[in-house]
Amino acid sequence: MVPEADAQKLKDAAASMPSITMSAKQVCDLEMIGIGAFSPLEGFVGPDDFTSICTNMRLSNGTPWPIPITLAVDDATKDALAEGKQAALHHPDGTLMAVIDVTSIYAHDKKLEIPNVFGTEDEAHPGVKAVVDEGDWLVGGPVHVITTEADSGDAERFESHRLPPAKTREAFDKLGWSRVAAFQTRNPIHRAHEYLCKCAQEICDGLLVHPLVGETKPGDIPADVRMKCYETIIEHYFVDERTMLSVMPAAMRYAGPREAILHALIRQNYGASHFIVGRDHAGVGDYYGTYDAQLIFDQFTRDEIMVEPLKFEHAAWSNRAQGMVSAKTFPKIQGDQIFLSGTKVREMLARGERPPGEFSRPEVADVLIEWAVNAAAPA
Amino acid sequence: MVPEADAQKLKDAAASMPSITMSAKQVCDLEMIGIGAFSPLEGFVGPDDFTSICTNMRLSNGTPWPIPITLAVDDATKDALAEGKQAALHHPDGTLMAVIDVTSIYAHDKKLEIPNVFGTEDEAHPGVKAVVDEGDWLVGGPVHVITTEADSGDAERFESHRLPPAKTREAFDKLGWSRVAAFQTRNPIHRAHEYLCKCAQEICDGLLVHPLVGETKPGDIPADVRMKCYETIIEHYFVDERTMLSVMPAAMRYAGPREAILHALIRQNYGASHFIVGRDHAGVGDYYGTYDAQLIFDQFTRDEIMVEPLKFEHAAWSNRAQGMVSAKTFPKIQGDQIFLSGTKVREMLARGERPPGEFSRPEVADVLIEWAVNAAAPA
Repeated sequence: MVPEADAQKLKDAAASMPSITMSAKQVCDLEMIGIGAFSPLEGFVGPDDFTSICTNMRLSNGTPWPIPITLAVDDATKDALAEGKQAALHHPDGTLMAVIDVTSIYAHDKKLEIPNVFGTEDEAHPGVKAVVDEGDWLVGGPVHVITTEADSGDAERFESHRLPPAKTREAFDKLGWSRVAAFQTRNPIHRAHEYLCKCAQEICDGLLVHPLVGETKPGDIPADVRMKCYETIIEHYFVDERTMLSVMPAAMRYAGPREAILHALIRQNYGASHFIVGRDHAGVGDYYGTYDAQLIFDQFTRDEIMVEPLKFEHAAWSNRAQGMVSAKTFPKIQGDQIFLSGTKVREMLARGERPPGEFSRPEVADVLIEWAVNAAAPA
Repeated sequence: MVPEADAQKLKDAAASMPSITMSAKQVCDLEMIGIGAFSPLEGFVGPDDFTSICTNMRLSNGTPWPIPITLAVDDATKDALAEGKQAALHHPDGTLMAVIDVTSIYAHDKKLEIPNVFGTEDEAHPGVKAVVDEGDWLVGGPVHVITTEADSGDAERFESHRLPPAKTREAFDKLGWSRVAAFQTRNPIHRAHEYLCKCAQEICDGLLVHPLVGETKPGDIPADVRMKCYETIIEHYFVDERTMLSVMPAAMRYAGPREAILHALIRQNYGASHFIVGRDHAGVGDYYGTYDAQLIFDQFTRDEIMVEPLKFEHAAWSNRAQGMVSAKTFPKIQGDQIFLSGTKVREMLARGERPPGEFSRPEVADVLIEWAVNAAAPA
């Protein structure tokens, strides 16, 4: 972020620069860069890093980095830019958010990026589709971020929970947490998630519930509803002094294994020592193997990715064990475990029914019912 | 261990050597050395290591080692020995177990050992008492172990579960377990212990239930009863392919924090990557602070003690959480948790009553009832 003293000078200069209007995903990426959550990146990647990331999951200097953070633009925008000059980065609503030092303008090699990053070229994949729809040119260079918040205001910014990495690290120091487990989520916390969080919490000093609130695909539960679920479950079922709720403004790519690595590196920046990786982390549909996002960590050393991945399997209530269990911790007996599909749960919620207490905490179910009933009602 | 081909030669030679009859604790220590569980020790410590261990928790070469493994002898035995010569080590029943190359004979500095190792000089402490009662001379030197099993036979040797470190490592490789959590125990597994084990199991590939079956103090539950508890709970409540039961033949010192370090180093030798450290690990009475055995790990780097300590708090069933919880994972509500004292549980068992299912699995309770009812009956 640019110091306030320099911001006005930059704003004045920006008025005469060529302008790039960012997509929602690019706005998220810009914020992640600006707050240090994408460290060591200080801007959008240039051609060497782009190629190295796509082919080797590393920056050109060898540092692990799994997904290129790109500023894609269309032909007309590209024609107005020049290497060695600056450009103004605008929010879709017109807000000036940053200035980029354009160090490279290069063709967007989608044929390289898409299969490498997503493991598929199927345009039904929301992450693939997003790249396909982007501009055919990429602009690389460091950014000077003036603001991360658009003029239009955004009801879902969760400012009080929006701590940048420096602030979460400061908070962990203050709390005396040297072992911090981070939990990435873009879903409400049902008992299965609560169980993973608490297993991690038992072996750490504290838990960072760190929901992704950046751009997600249509059909995902809105971030404000999810936040209400997190606040509710923490209030009733977690220990305040051991639990921190903060938001993570990245956009989802649904890139499965590669995105799991990205999510881990981000949490390292936020000061976590451990990172929960469940089955099909950051996946969508059937594009990735259940444990691909866990196995990919074997391609890096502990010194390269300094957060320890905590690899969990699917958990559910077992009547015979009288507790939450996974395939690792309890012999499976046909029909013993309480399992509900996402579709089934949505149907129950839309009818105003709480799922069983073994599946969802009633307080969380009530938050979801309020949303689901309204969402199901004709507009 | 001495290769079988050389054993006979050594036995013949031993006949003309001075003899040391070992205590039960020394027999345990000899076995631990012989099987490689006390690696890098290859024998009983000499004076430099003794002093360095007592004062710095390290061998004289700097390697972490918290408790001196000593061969204490009385005046008469000492007078028959000579530095540079060998001596025969016998089991109390007369069995020749090993030969020691005597490299040092030195005064047993109990005034240095006791307060440093145990943090107290109170003879009511069973570990302190054992050292006080030992001989006033120490014999140092490498040992050549001929056998770890006395002629008298021992109903509680658990041979089928008595894997040396090389064999557990081999088994983990075969099972594909790279992350193995070891659980040290000298108590039956109630639900609280089961919970710690399963939390660890969720984040690892497998669990090594690794009960200490060496010398313990009177009043501890006999090893054979405990083994039956472990087998029973594993049969009914653990996943076979993720759980290994093996015994660890060390003697207890009840040295709390220092013994926690010893137990961790031992498990490193057995091939574990993680080690469960509960509250008051290896403690007795009120000699140690609840978390001293966890905090002591901060005095070593991750490269020095390569197993990761998993530091757990006391766990119990919570009615409101409908699950096992600790102070880390659930807000405490007065009277919500099911807690029973050890004394209370013993009383129930002796009356033939099962503790509540939230405290003990009924199958385990039945094993303990069978033992407790017999133990309570007049002889």
